[in-house]
Amino acid sequence: MTNTLRLGIAGLGTVGTGLLDIVTKHSASLAVRAGTPIEVTEVTARDRDKDRGVDLSGLTWAASPEAMATSENVDVFVELMGGDGEPAKSSVEAALRAGKHVVTANKALLAMHGNELARLAEENEVALNFEAAVAGGIPIVKTIRESATANQISRVYGIMNGTCNFIMTKMRNEARDFADVLAEAQALGYAEADPTFDIGGFDAAHKLAILTSLAFGREIDFSAIYVEGIEHIALDDIKAADNLGFKIKLLGVAVETEDGIEQRVHPTLVPKGSNIAEVEGVFNAVGLEGDSVGELILEGAGAGAGPTASAVMADIIDIARGNVVHPLGLPVSMLKPYKRARMRAHEGGYYIALELFDRPGEVAAVAQHMANQNISLASIMQHTSDTVEKGAKRETAPFILITHDTMESDVRTALDEIENGGHLASKPRVIRIERF
Amino acid sequence: MTNTLRLGIAGLGTVGTGLLDIVTKHSASLAVRAGTPIEVTEVTARDRDKDRGVDLSGLTWAASPEAMATSENVDVFVELMGGDGEPAKSSVEAALRAGKHVVTANKALLAMHGNELARLAEENEVALNFEAAVAGGIPIVKTIRESATANQISRVYGIMNGTCNFIMTKMRNEARDFADVLAEAQALGYAEADPTFDIGGFDAAHKLAILTSLAFGREIDFSAIYVEGIEHIALDDIKAADNLGFKIKLLGVAVETEDGIEQRVHPTLVPKGSNIAEVEGVFNAVGLEGDSVGELILEGAGAGAGPTASAVMADIIDIARGNVVHPLGLPVSMLKPYKRARMRAHEGGYYIALELFDRPGEVAAVAQHMANQNISLASIMQHTSDTVEKGAKRETAPFILITHDTMESDVRTALDEIENGGHLASKPRVIRIERF
Repeated sequence: MTNTLRLGIAGLGTVGTGLLDIVTKHSASLAVRAGTPIEVTEVTARDRDKDRGVDLSGLTWAASPEAMATSENVDVFVELMGGDGEPAKSSVEAALRAGKHVVTANKALLAMHGNELARLAEENEVALNFEAAVAGGIPIVKTIRESATANQISRVYGIMNGTCNFIMTKMRNEARDFADVLAEAQALGYAEADPTFDIGGFDAAHKLAILTSLAFGREIDFSAIYVEGIEHIALDDIKAADNLGFKIKLLGVAVETEDGIEQRVHPTLVPKGSNIAEVEGVFNAVGLEGDSVGELILEGAGAGAGPTASAVMADIIDIARGNVVHPLGLPVSMLKPYKRARMRAHEGGYYIALELFDRPGEVAAVAQHMANQNISLASIMQHTSDTVEKGAKRETAPFILITHDTMESDVRTALDEIENGGHLASKPRVIRIERF
Repeated sequence: MTNTLRLGIAGLGTVGTGLLDIVTKHSASLAVRAGTPIEVTEVTARDRDKDRGVDLSGLTWAASPEAMATSENVDVFVELMGGDGEPAKSSVEAALRAGKHVVTANKALLAMHGNELARLAEENEVALNFEAAVAGGIPIVKTIRESATANQISRVYGIMNGTCNFIMTKMRNEARDFADVLAEAQALGYAEADPTFDIGGFDAAHKLAILTSLAFGREIDFSAIYVEGIEHIALDDIKAADNLGFKIKLLGVAVETEDGIEQRVHPTLVPKGSNIAEVEGVFNAVGLEGDSVGELILEGAGAGAGPTASAVMADIIDIARGNVVHPLGLPVSMLKPYKRARMRAHEGGYYIALELFDRPGEVAAVAQHMANQNISLASIMQHTSDTVEKGAKRETAPFILITHDTMESDVRTALDEIENGGHLASKPRVIRIERF
C-alpha cells in the first residue's frame, strides 16, 4: 500500500457514480478522517461508452473486473456490480487472494457465498466490508459487529425492502389495491419491471441472511429462510388489521429459539404505535434486542446512490484507518453451523381471514376446529366488506380471527380441517403477528 | 499492555456494577470479539463497604481514582464516577498522561473539558472513548465518528433526556399536568428529588455539546447552548399542539447556518407522524442529516445500567482491537473554533399562545403587530380552555398562533409590542417548531 489509499471501482451504476461524486466533493475531509488521501485509480464497467455524467478522465479503465482485482495500482477493490454470480464472485475472490481489501454492496453475493468469502478474507488478512449490502445507508453491520459486541442478541428484525414498504404504506394510507400501487411504484422507479425479487421477499431475505449470521454467530444460510412476499395482501386485510390495532409490514425476522434459529421474511402484523410500525414509505429500519442494550432501532434510507455510497465510503475509511474486523463478526472457524427451526414450530399470534358460507352453524364449526387444536382467540371480527351491492343477498361472510400465541403447526392443522369440512368459500388468508 | 486487557473501574454505581456483570457473564465471547481476554483488575468507589450485590473478591481496591489511573495493573481507566469536577477530571487526566486508554460515560466532563481531554489523549496516543456519554446504549458517537464520515452533516438533533420524554409523553397520553407527572416520575425513580438538571434541559445540553462537535468538526462549547426546559409547558399547550398536528418534545438541535452554529435545547413542536414524534416514554433517539446518507435516526435506551454498560464495553472492545480514533472525530488541532449563531437570528416556525382580554379589537390589534414584523401566520386557533365555569363570564380568551418560518427577533419584537400595548392578561407562551 502506498501512502495514498487507491480504489478500483467495479461497476459504475448509480452507486458507483455516487461514490465518485463523494470522493471528488469531500476529498480533503475524507483524507483527514482516513488519515491518508483516498483516490480512485481504476474503474471498470460493462459499457465503457455510456455517458454517466461524471468525469472519468485521469482514471485507468481496467480491461475487466478480474484484471482490476489484481492490479498493482489498486489497494481496495470496490465491487458494485451486484449479483451472486460472475463477474462479481470471481473478481472478489481474486482480489482477496491478491491481498486486496474488498468493499461491496452486494447482498446476493454475501447471502450465497459469504462464509467462503469471509474465510478467504481472513486467510489473506484483508477486510471484507459490506455495510452497504444491508439496508443501504443504515450502519447496522457496524452496529452489530462493533457496538452491540457486549450483548447476547435474541432477535434481529427489520423493514429491509423500500419497495415493499412503499407499497404497504400507500395501500393503507390511500386505500388502494396492491396492483394499483405496484404500478405507481414501477412508474416512480421504486419497483422493477419484473418486481418479483422485491415483492416476493427475496431481496429482504438476502439481507436477513447476513444479519442473522452477524447477530447469532452462525454461518450464513440463505436457503434456510422461510420467504413469503406481499403479493397476496388484500386491501381488506390492511383495513381489518387497522381496525384491530395493527399495520401490515414486510418484515425480516431472525430469532434464536430452543429448536434453532427461526429466519423468516413475510408480511407481518405489527402493533400500531410500535417503532417499527411507524416506519413508512421507502424508509428502512433494522432493530435488534440485546441482553444489555435492550431494544435498538436504526432508521434511514435503505437504497439510493447517496446513502449506499455513504456506507461504502465509511467502509473504505475504516480500511484506511486499519480498523479491520472479522467480516462476520467472529472468525469464520468459530461460527456455529446454522441450525434451522422449522416454521411449523414457530410460536406467535396469527391473523386469519376466512370467507365463510353465510349459513347457520358455520362460525360454531370454525370455532370448534380452533378449540380442537387448543388455539385461543384474542379477537374475532365479523368484517363487512364493501363488495356486496345494496339489496344483493350475501352468500358468504368474511370472518377475521386474531389468535393468542400458538404453534404454527396447530394453525395449519385447524385450517386444513376447516377447509376439508367445506366451510370456506375461498382459501384462508393467514398473516403472522410479531410483538414489539 | 499484557496479553490480557486489564480494566480499572472508578465508580461502582449501577453502571459500574452492570459492567462487572457483563465482564463476568460474557467473558468468553468478549475475548473472541476483542481478540484478547478482558479482565477487571482494580476498582475504586467512594464507599468501600456498601453491598452492591456483586462479587468484588479477587479485585484490588485502589486507594483512589488518581492512584488507579496510574496503576501498573491497569491498561484502561474506566471512569464511571460522573461530574465535571474532581475526582473525575484529575484522574482522567492522570490516566491519559500515564498512557492509559480512558473510557467514560461522563457527559458533563466532556461537555466542559472535552477539547483539552481529547488533545491530551492525542498527545499520549491513547483512546478517549465516550459512547455511553451520549444517549446511553445508542451508538451515535460511533455512527458520527465512523459511519457518517463521508457526509457533510447539516443538522443533528435528538430526544436525549428520558425523564423529559417520559413526562411529555404522559402529560399528552393521560391529559395530566406537569407537576402531577413529575411527581410520578420521581416516585418511579425516573427523576431526581431535585429534577432541575433533567427538566431544565441541562443534561440534554451536555450531550448536545458533544454531538455538535462531532457532527460539525468544531470545538465543544457548552456555554454557547441556548437552554430552555420543559417546566413551563402547560397541558393546554400540549392539547393545542395536538389539535394543530404536533407533539411537544424536549429536543436538542444543532444546525449549521450562515451565521455560525445554532445549538439549542428547548421544548419543540414536532409534526405528528415524523419519526422523532413517535419516540415515546423514556426512549431516546438521535438523528442526523448528511449530504449523502440523508436522514438517519437511531433509537434506544438512553440510560440504565445495561444499555450504558453495553456502550462502555463496546468502547473497551474497540480499544482491545486497536481501533483508536480521534476522540472528537478530527484531530483537535483541526477542529474549527465554535462560532455561535445568536438565537435572535434563528429562523423557524413558532407556536404562540396568548391570553387576550375578551373585548372587541384585541385580535385585530394582535394581528396588526404580527403583520408589522412581517410575520406570516400558518394557523390561528381560538382555543377554548376548560377553566371557565358554566354561566361564568369569560374575561379573557386563549388565542393560539402558528407562524410560518420567521426570525426569532421579529417574534420577540412583536410580542413585546403586544405586551406593551396592554393586550395580554398573562405572559405569552412561545414554543419553537422544528420541521422534519
